[in-house]
Amino acid sequence: MKLYKELVTIIKDENRVSINETILEQHSKGLAYHTPVKPDIVVFPTTTEEIRSILALANLHQIPVTPYGAGSSLEGHFIPVNKGIMINLTRMNKIIDIRPDDFIVKVQPGVTRNQLNQELKKYGLFFPVDPGADASIGGMASTNASGTNSVKYGTMKDQVLGLEVVLANGKIIKTGGMAIKSSAGYNLTSLFVGSEGTLGVFSEVTLRLKGIQEATVAGRALFSSIEEAGKAAETMLKSGISFGKIELVDDRTIKAVNAYKETNYQEVPTLFIEISGSDQSVQHDIAVTQEVAMSEGCTLFEFENDSLARAKLWEARHHVAFAILAANPGKGMLSTDVCVPISELPNAIIETRKITDKFQVDAAIFGHIGDGNYHAVMSIDEDNVGKIEKINEHIVQYALKKGGTCTGEHGVGIGKRKFLSQEHGDAVKVMKTIKASLDPMGILNPGKVF
Amino acid sequence: MKLYKELVTIIKDENRVSINETILEQHSKGLAYHTPVKPDIVVFPTTTEEIRSILALANLHQIPVTPYGAGSSLEGHFIPVNKGIMINLTRMNKIIDIRPDDFIVKVQPGVTRNQLNQELKKYGLFFPVDPGADASIGGMASTNASGTNSVKYGTMKDQVLGLEVVLANGKIIKTGGMAIKSSAGYNLTSLFVGSEGTLGVFSEVTLRLKGIQEATVAGRALFSSIEEAGKAAETMLKSGISFGKIELVDDRTIKAVNAYKETNYQEVPTLFIEISGSDQSVQHDIAVTQEVAMSEGCTLFEFENDSLARAKLWEARHHVAFAILAANPGKGMLSTDVCVPISELPNAIIETRKITDKFQVDAAIFGHIGDGNYHAVMSIDEDNVGKIEKINEHIVQYALKKGGTCTGEHGVGIGKRKFLSQEHGDAVKVMKTIKASLDPMGILNPGKVF
Ligand SMILES: Cc1cc2nc3c(=O)[nH]c(=O)nc-3n(C[C@H](O)[C@H](O)[C@H](O)COP(=O)(O)OP(=O)(O)OC[C@H]3O[C@@H](n4cnc5c(N)ncnc54)[C@H](O)[C@@H]3O)c2cc1C
Ligand SMILES: Cc1cc2nc3c(=O)[nH]c(=O)nc-3n(C[C@H](O)[C@H](O)[C@H](O)COP(=O)(O)OP(=O)(O)OC[C@H]3O[C@@H](n4cnc5c(N)ncnc54)[C@H](O)[C@@H]3O)c2cc1C
Repeated sequence: MKLYKELVTIIKDENRVSINETILEQHSKGLAYHTPVKPDIVVFPTTTEEIRSILALANLHQIPVTPYGAGSSLEGHFIPVNKGIMINLTRMNKIIDIRPDDFIVKVQPGVTRNQLNQELKKYGLFFPVDPGADASIGGMASTNASGTNSVKYGTMKDQVLGLEVVLANGKIIKTGGMAIKSSAGYNLTSLFVGSEGTLGVFSEVTLRLKGIQEATVAGRALFSSIEEAGKAAETMLKSGISFGKIELVDDRTIKAVNAYKETNYQEVPTLFIEISGSDQSVQHDIAVTQEVAMSEGCTLFEFENDSLARAKLWEARHHVAFAILAANPGKGMLSTDVCVPISELPNAIIETRKITDKFQVDAAIFGHIGDGNYHAVMSIDEDNVGKIEKINEHIVQYALKKGGTCTGEHGVGIGKRKFLSQEHGDAVKVMKTIKASLDPMGILNPGKVF
Repeated sequence: MKLYKELVTIIKDENRVSINETILEQHSKGLAYHTPVKPDIVVFPTTTEEIRSILALANLHQIPVTPYGAGSSLEGHFIPVNKGIMINLTRMNKIIDIRPDDFIVKVQPGVTRNQLNQELKKYGLFFPVDPGADASIGGMASTNASGTNSVKYGTMKDQVLGLEVVLANGKIIKTGGMAIKSSAGYNLTSLFVGSEGTLGVFSEVTLRLKGIQEATVAGRALFSSIEEAGKAAETMLKSGISFGKIELVDDRTIKAVNAYKETNYQEVPTLFIEISGSDQSVQHDIAVTQEVAMSEGCTLFEFENDSLARAKLWEARHHVAFAILAANPGKGMLSTDVCVPISELPNAIIETRKITDKFQVDAAIFGHIGDGNYHAVMSIDEDNVGKIEKINEHIVQYALKKGGTCTGEHGVGIGKRKFLSQEHGDAVKVMKTIKASLDPMGILNPGKVF
């Protein structure tokens, strides 16, 4: 109650400081399988200055603080395990400055991806990172999100040019700037990107933008084995063509989609492809892609230029996660997220299907094959949680053995903490040293990452 | 002498521990204008273990340690201002593991760019960062180098997937890994990249590779003003074409080249362009580029496919720095290195020419226009050093005012220290906190960056 009053004094607006049970409940859990914990209080700041005051107060009293963007993260990132203050950033959703001639935009952290792209369209520009969900830019920066576009455009780390960060002690710093590149001192921007709310709260984000391409073509290539599909993807990538997207879905996942959507896609391993560029170059590139696919055993290759037909062609890919969830109504979900050296992807997917079969668990298995990143999405409940965790563990161990990572894009949150030391060894000590030096009281999103 | 003996005990090879005057002299200065300082001793390790022992010893006795790659850095980066031990990494020049199917290579830090590309050619691959000089991979990682290719392929930060780093206390850590992307914990790789030898010594570097493109075409477009050339470049970049290189050289610099090479290039602002990709797409892209150029006031547009003719077309661009140096034999040089938001580049170049004219100083002025990064190369001696520093200061202040950076690719070293706080404000305190937590004795390359 004392905390509530102090926060109301800072925020000067009771509507933006909440201890309402429904609100607390809403902020207690994500979409995934982690145990919910309610924060003590949720604050909705609208300015950097308000964030600064909240953090200064929290630091003084050693109260845990957890930032909240759009709540779409999948590893319990924002669950306030030690309770305390939750900073909901959705009201900081202004696009501050669009500089089309510089291919740069500066936004508040609560701006969502769709909101941003809607606005950018007017300038013939777009922001290329697409994690599927309509996440907030602050949240995406904080998990180093990526998605289907990253084979062409990279991850958040490649797009964030600068940050305004409120540190644990309430000090405000600015990292990076508006130059596309810089070698001026340590790259703090990249250190904060991916720090999952444990090193500071982002109050402004400066992003690089891309020009909307003249033409886009989508393709689908069917194969009789994962190995063949994998080999074909490898050859395509080596051909020098710059793929916009290149995704692999296994046969059993297509089967699940057919059951879910009452469609009749051929139930074989399928590559989904997107290429964009000038009209002429995409026509050429798709022809080369088809040629490569056929020479690597592709049994059917289709492609579409028109935007509706493209969406239809990709439909099966878009439904993979829902196919599993729909078949298991009311249950939670777990999405594995390992990333392996790209030549290892086909075998990793085969191994994953083997292990889910062994445990007799339904799984949608699909991968960003151009990055070596793939997911097995499984529904989860109290009965099967043990099994699912064993499967996840097996998949992570396999990836680590191959030189991969336990999380390609979702982040560590709560769910991947146990693998961090195995993956990074003594480097984790360096991470902890940095955490301790920037947040000596440990108030920022405690219980995450480590 | 005691130090010498201790190091010989560690290295077990007198030939690799040197106090020879000539050797010390060679390691006392770079190509640029900074005051030389000789190290006390130069060691040439061949293994990570040797680096570890050297650092453990140095840390115990608080002896400064400075890593040395190929010695091509331009801001006095490796000048051992506090003397001590210099670690020359040229004998650690093994390519450890090429994984063509993963587009990855792991190398020792002393491997040079040309050495690496020579080897990679066999696999149809190349390493895209090209800083002009035949720098070492460790040095390039340490300065976050880039160059003409970075408009397409990014900087070292985008290419380094993982590092083995020997920390100040002799502990060895591994950052990153072999996955193309990861969200597993803090991005230490990007923190170490660009740290200029002040946070650790890189003993292994894992790099991303690219496939050699089918076709390359080079072009040259002449304009009657810098503004027009700049506007044309902006429109070209917006067209969605992926330029391999796009460089702007001002009229006076072309004039200097003509004087130096006895050539007769038209003395007007010139854009140099390179596009690579499939045969068909480069033909298309160069045609679009020409169209854009002509509509923006280009007076002459030439292009060449053949590799010799391409080199000839780019000749003037390649000679710009030498044109100034040759006209001033025996003098040192200073290359400015600011980077501005890309739409600001034409005006920044005009402003730079104004200020060099005001001080009556010869300068080659040319820019990586796709990144907003440009250089003014000036010869320097005792008589004009004051003037040149004033010019440099003016150029940096102008760039900072426009939201740019004092160094786009060369790094801070000694020369840019004075601008760091102005550019980054309190973020520099965070950098210093990190430095203090990782190198509490301050033995690693003291006097640099801060
Ligand atoms: C259907 C579905 C598909 C998905 N697909 C992908 C995918 O393909 N790729 C991918 O990368 N992710 C994917 N995700 C996961 C999710 O969208 C990303 O993790 C996203 O980056 C989370 O953003 P958010 O705004 O929802 O953040 P939140 O979930 O609100 O928070 C995530 C973390 O960021 C911190 N945080 C939030 N805002 C800030 C801030 N301003 N400053 C500091 N820290 C902050 C929080 O404390 C928390 O630790 C998917 C999720 C769903 C539901
Ligand atoms: C003609 C010319 C043109 C140039 N053009 C460009 C350009 O276009 N773009 C560009 O970016 N640069 C350019 N440079 C600058 C230079 O090539 C780069 O700065 C390069 O990255 C330096 O690499 P090096 O191996 O020579 O490093 P060095 O000069 O030996 O060292 C540079 C820094 O790295 C540290 N270091 C070296 N090795 C290691 C290691 N293994 N671990 C930790 N720290 C280490 C050193 O202590 C020092 O601080 C140019 C230089 C010249 C001479």
